[in-house]
Amino acid sequence: MKEQIHRWLEEHREEGVAFLQRLVQERSTQTNEAGVQKLVVQKLEQMGLDIDVWEPDGEELQKHEYFYSPRKEFSGSPNVVGVMKGAGGEGSRSIILNGHIDVVPDGDRAQWDDDPFSGRIVDGKMYGRGVTDMKGGNVSLLLAMEALQGLGVRLKGDVIFQSVIEEESGGAGTLATILRGYRADAALIPEPTNMRIFPKQQGSMWFRVLVKGRSAHGGTRYQGVSAIEKSMVVVQHLLKLEEVRNARVVDPLYAGTPIPIPINVGSIEGGTWPSSVPDLVKLEGRMGVSPEETMEAAKSEMKDWLAKLGDVDPWFKSHPVTLEWFGARWVPGSIDTEHELMKVLVDKFRGVTGTQPIIEASPWGTDGGLLTQVGETPSIVFGPGVTEVAHYPNEYIVLDRVFETAEIIALTLMDWCGAAE
Amino acid sequence: MKEQIHRWLEEHREEGVAFLQRLVQERSTQTNEAGVQKLVVQKLEQMGLDIDVWEPDGEELQKHEYFYSPRKEFSGSPNVVGVMKGAGGEGSRSIILNGHIDVVPDGDRAQWDDDPFSGRIVDGKMYGRGVTDMKGGNVSLLLAMEALQGLGVRLKGDVIFQSVIEEESGGAGTLATILRGYRADAALIPEPTNMRIFPKQQGSMWFRVLVKGRSAHGGTRYQGVSAIEKSMVVVQHLLKLEEVRNARVVDPLYAGTPIPIPINVGSIEGGTWPSSVPDLVKLEGRMGVSPEETMEAAKSEMKDWLAKLGDVDPWFKSHPVTLEWFGARWVPGSIDTEHELMKVLVDKFRGVTGTQPIIEASPWGTDGGLLTQVGETPSIVFGPGVTEVAHYPNEYIVLDRVFETAEIIALTLMDWCGAAE
Repeated sequence: MKEQIHRWLEEHREEGVAFLQRLVQERSTQTNEAGVQKLVVQKLEQMGLDIDVWEPDGEELQKHEYFYSPRKEFSGSPNVVGVMKGAGGEGSRSIILNGHIDVVPDGDRAQWDDDPFSGRIVDGKMYGRGVTDMKGGNVSLLLAMEALQGLGVRLKGDVIFQSVIEEESGGAGTLATILRGYRADAALIPEPTNMRIFPKQQGSMWFRVLVKGRSAHGGTRYQGVSAIEKSMVVVQHLLKLEEVRNARVVDPLYAGTPIPIPINVGSIEGGTWPSSVPDLVKLEGRMGVSPEETMEAAKSEMKDWLAKLGDVDPWFKSHPVTLEWFGARWVPGSIDTEHELMKVLVDKFRGVTGTQPIIEASPWGTDGGLLTQVGETPSIVFGPGVTEVAHYPNEYIVLDRVFETAEIIALTLMDWCGAAE
Repeated sequence: MKEQIHRWLEEHREEGVAFLQRLVQERSTQTNEAGVQKLVVQKLEQMGLDIDVWEPDGEELQKHEYFYSPRKEFSGSPNVVGVMKGAGGEGSRSIILNGHIDVVPDGDRAQWDDDPFSGRIVDGKMYGRGVTDMKGGNVSLLLAMEALQGLGVRLKGDVIFQSVIEEESGGAGTLATILRGYRADAALIPEPTNMRIFPKQQGSMWFRVLVKGRSAHGGTRYQGVSAIEKSMVVVQHLLKLEEVRNARVVDPLYAGTPIPIPINVGSIEGGTWPSSVPDLVKLEGRMGVSPEETMEAAKSEMKDWLAKLGDVDPWFKSHPVTLEWFGARWVPGSIDTEHELMKVLVDKFRGVTGTQPIIEASPWGTDGGLLTQVGETPSIVFGPGVTEVAHYPNEYIVLDRVFETAEIIALTLMDWCGAAE
């Protein structure tokens, strides 16, 4: 069967590449997802799946504690789900194949060597915004399903393919699939992992710290207290917290990761006038959350740690910093490393590539966190994209990896869902 | 004569207070100076001075290397000069009495206990934006001149009274008086000094430093270099430069000043996304310039010092910071402490108040820098306003100080300019 799948994929390589190219050429940034979803629906129609297309209900989503998006309205931005109904029977197991169709903006075009939406192919690599994160992975999923169909394989368990919006903005698309009732025995998400297998994914949440100073004229700055200088004490204190938290991470999956759950101070803003001592600085950042802790525990630890700033600098005793949690949040995701889907995937990876997969914990959250914690569907992240170029200019994918991944997934589906005939 | 001047001022106290109140009630923020200048012109007309009213020529000003203003056009914003012609003769010396009529914005009204332009009087203090900085000082100048006129004193030297715009925005008003040809043997500027005498005024200029980092995803922040962390190295380095520069200031005038020429980092801004490692931080600040150095020398020192950042942190060898000078600049001002006008002023201060004046160097620039360096008119800054409330809510002045200052100045004018009869 492995040989047949391999051959089927070789024979359909041009079609697969052309389809990926068309997906990339659709600039599916936030609010602009309708065009690309139409292409996905056409493909699912050709495949004869049960198709569900809907615009998530902003009002309903907003009531959910794990909802986050900069927008509250999703009209014109449909989710698409296509179900390949299984035959059922003994040993049948369902699976969700989840991929987001939204892409981050292309940013400064001057940094791109070519049109960011060209889908141009050079030396076996296709270039374009979103090709690696993660339209290439989505195409691997579809090719895997098509190959099984093309070879007449009927599975026992349901395969639920999801082309979701909003992953880049907080996961509202996947949350909407869960609220619509989609669950499965496990899930696979082909985010750009360089074909590493991530049974655990770091979660994260955004914090804002306000650091106070006391204003004065710059010419007599000694009469004031610089919130910029005080913010340095705060940044150092946060780095120390990062150290303390990471010393606790002993999971061997993180063995190769210098800082498993980083605290990143991403932006700083303070002071309004060159000639005045700044009396307020705003720090915003991202706190990594380990799959072994709850978001609430991580928040408490940060709060308690910042309350200790007064021991570092007495200024903070009378002028404590303010901590807020805001904006996006990515729930950590995980699957037991001994889970049957892990075993199957690792086995098929070995079979197809002839090498051992790298199994790690991911340094970033994915929609796998929502699937795991809200949808109660344990999730693996594994995909063909190139981690390093996600969100960067000249984003690309190696096309061979797309087909290898499709082959691994097709074989995984047969094993996990069970083959009926 | 001292007694007569004192009595004249007592007898005309109500008129003086009422005039100050009317000046304060005119909200003469930048571009809104016409109304208050009309009141000044009326006063000068009553006094029978030679009056010169003109709107500075933006095109001409812009060609001057010491021009700075956020605006380039001054129509509707007149300068006013009134000259009390001296009789001339042996020992006659001219003087410029310079006061700016523009005020900084009132800011957040919620922080004011009363309407910022009420000019309300409570317990001998008048309240309002600009009353201390520096309409109260301007009224002291006018009262001094009126008292001499009222008592029939004719001076030998010219007294050139200037009511200028734009001091709060870089001194374009005073620069325009110089370009129009106004010079004198010395100048007196009654900025709010708490009646301290400032023969030297710290200059200052604004700098911008761009600090580079290397972007990365916050979840793998160890792959990037945080421009926020690097900016802390830069701020520390600037604080060290401040230390080095201030160690050189040995002028006894600065004996009571913790940091004679501070370097103030007034604002910071960097990073665009909580989940990204910031790759650029912008610092803006104010560098104090000593009256003993040129602006150019101070600029060079800052440039050379920042070039040494690579010794502190090798990152800066490959990623040097960028230094720019921008926006406002205040030229340091000075007069020889042994200058005759200093001696006269100190003597009259003692006579009127019965105490020794505090003689210091000011921690901020005034238009005295332009008068000194461009107008070649050595300048003293000495005035009745309350230093601490300038630019602050609930700005006020103690009215007794306005009249004491008028008395000191009237006596100073007689001595300096010489009395003809």
